[in-house]
Amino acid sequence: MIYLDNASTTKIFESVNKKIFELNNEFFYNPSALYKPATDTAKILESAREELAKNMCTTAEHIIFTSGATEANNMAIFGFATGKKDAEYIFSTGEHPSVFNVAETLKMQNKIVRYTDISNNGIVDEEKFKNLINQNTHFVSIIHVSNETGAINDIKKLCQIAHQKNPNIIFHADGTQAFGKIYVDVKDLDVDCYTISAHKFHGPKGVGALYVKNPDKIKAIMFGGGQQKGKRSGTENVSGYVGMAMASTIAVKNIQSNYAQILALKDYIKQEITHNCTDFKFNDAKNNSPYILSVSFKGLRGEVLLHQLEEQGVLVGVGSACSSKKQNNRVLENMGVSKDYLLGSVRISFSCQNTPSEIKIATQSLIEQYKILKEKMSK
Amino acid sequence: MIYLDNASTTKIFESVNKKIFELNNEFFYNPSALYKPATDTAKILESAREELAKNMCTTAEHIIFTSGATEANNMAIFGFATGKKDAEYIFSTGEHPSVFNVAETLKMQNKIVRYTDISNNGIVDEEKFKNLINQNTHFVSIIHVSNETGAINDIKKLCQIAHQKNPNIIFHADGTQAFGKIYVDVKDLDVDCYTISAHKFHGPKGVGALYVKNPDKIKAIMFGGGQQKGKRSGTENVSGYVGMAMASTIAVKNIQSNYAQILALKDYIKQEITHNCTDFKFNDAKNNSPYILSVSFKGLRGEVLLHQLEEQGVLVGVGSACSSKKQNNRVLENMGVSKDYLLGSVRISFSCQNTPSEIKIATQSLIEQYKILKEKMSK
Repeated sequence: MIYLDNASTTKIFESVNKKIFELNNEFFYNPSALYKPATDTAKILESAREELAKNMCTTAEHIIFTSGATEANNMAIFGFATGKKDAEYIFSTGEHPSVFNVAETLKMQNKIVRYTDISNNGIVDEEKFKNLINQNTHFVSIIHVSNETGAINDIKKLCQIAHQKNPNIIFHADGTQAFGKIYVDVKDLDVDCYTISAHKFHGPKGVGALYVKNPDKIKAIMFGGGQQKGKRSGTENVSGYVGMAMASTIAVKNIQSNYAQILALKDYIKQEITHNCTDFKFNDAKNNSPYILSVSFKGLRGEVLLHQLEEQGVLVGVGSACSSKKQNNRVLENMGVSKDYLLGSVRISFSCQNTPSEIKIATQSLIEQYKILKEKMSK
Repeated sequence: MIYLDNASTTKIFESVNKKIFELNNEFFYNPSALYKPATDTAKILESAREELAKNMCTTAEHIIFTSGATEANNMAIFGFATGKKDAEYIFSTGEHPSVFNVAETLKMQNKIVRYTDISNNGIVDEEKFKNLINQNTHFVSIIHVSNETGAINDIKKLCQIAHQKNPNIIFHADGTQAFGKIYVDVKDLDVDCYTISAHKFHGPKGVGALYVKNPDKIKAIMFGGGQQKGKRSGTENVSGYVGMAMASTIAVKNIQSNYAQILALKDYIKQEITHNCTDFKFNDAKNNSPYILSVSFKGLRGEVLLHQLEEQGVLVGVGSACSSKKQNNRVLENMGVSKDYLLGSVRISFSCQNTPSEIKIATQSLIEQYKILKEKMSK
């Protein structure tokens, strides 16, 4: 099997999996207990927090461990909620469901929610965004790298635009598809909070984190034993958090070489598609993550192509895995992809575990299956 | 090391740890994706839900996987929240912080919160409880087995009392210290929701579940990709949930023999303490879990005894690990344990992994250290 659906999840690094296994055996203690094996476990946990923080260019006190990106995104939005009735929230129309559906929930709670448009290349329209900001704007959430297209939003610039017009805005970026793949320095981005997810960079599932610039200002959304300075209660998933930190170190250490390798793979597929196919559209921004290639073939069905490719041993996605069962193409639709292309969309997403020879085979399969489907269409 | 702090966390079963390692490698796919390896992963996940459900005497559609007991408790309370201003909530004063601190949060949100007393044996006073129920009572949460003392509340009876006076009450029980140790049949208990935690029965950390009788009626507290029928979004921690299900099967299969074995160990320690110590108090109910022994020694300091025992290679707890750093003895205090005993409390908690020879050594150490501390006191 050639796995090209890495935006939905990645295979855990062997070394990380081994580490988790070992820790589960040796440091199973409750980090809140008082004896030395427990305080040693707490030290391991706090070292993982430091390690992860360093890889995000921050320090440990700004990291809140969560059960994944969904919790981190929910926590950012609900944790900074305000009682002010005129407070306005801004979300891009290109957000992942774990932000978008929180926005929809806020709307149902009669909060003032505004959506900022994405352009036909998938990135937030900066002018339109600027025009939405005012003195009542309380919270902004913009996806760093689109999970559908790989489009990279200029978070630093958007954050500056927001704070220049209103320095009190809480600016959140969902970095689920960014961290570990493109360089992320949360201090330099100057965001107020930033979400990451371990299983997107070869860490374990069920583990994520929220960076918070001013941790004193965020309120907990879950209450209990007071772990993580009261910001996120619950006995910590020690081995999972250590696994995430370890995976982040491997990912960040190799970020440049991985980027170059994957860019070459993506460019190769794009070239081959360009030479061999007609009536297609790359849903690409100028500034796009090489890890994701979204392509729409006019008149074809993405799901059919997916299953044809699967028979050839090639696994790809159709948009966000989280909503793939619902055949939801909200983001591509918001980018203005027309209906005849929309349904023919597939998402090919890479990881550092993909090899050039795999990509050669996968590309050949893609073009073959494209031709078979095209021929069926013409009959 | 002799580990007698199993109420704070247990060591993962070797077979469960191995299974998690294997699944992380082989079934790392996103269960929401459309190709066969992913749908196979989804099948494994749903089998785990069925397996766990069966062990709780229910069926899969009633099980919502969570990141642990804290999330499950928070979900039960907030997920059944109502907009009715006169709605009343009842919690026992013996609840774990992950229920008690949600109750305190509700109070701050101007909800009507009533606490029902526990008797000096640690269980809920049924008469007082009955008197609190009225037509406005909306939600009740009672701990099944006290994490501090092991006192077993008669959940079936309390639930009947509540529903007889008001059939609309949502009755939640926190079964974190019960499930896998004492027989739990959620249908027979007739509760509306029930919390469990994997790491309390030799499963992995960061994984739990909420049983819900009418899953249509509970609202999500986290929003996103719509996993778990929209009730709990977020890419599922497949290996963790499978590990929990597997651990539950091992625990439930051996529940009777484990119970008998551990009861004998607990009785042995109690006898030895009774024969060798003075001015002590077992914080025991008539109907108590054998897995937990809370004992208070007048005039001693629990924390000092803990560290003395640690030097002898015996690990015990002082109350809830979740709040142990804060030296909180709320539950024992609510039971009416007087101050001179309160500070001298230790919690000895067992698991099926404890052996009689371990307990013999641990008991000897306990009595020795008790005598040393007593002698120091008398000087």
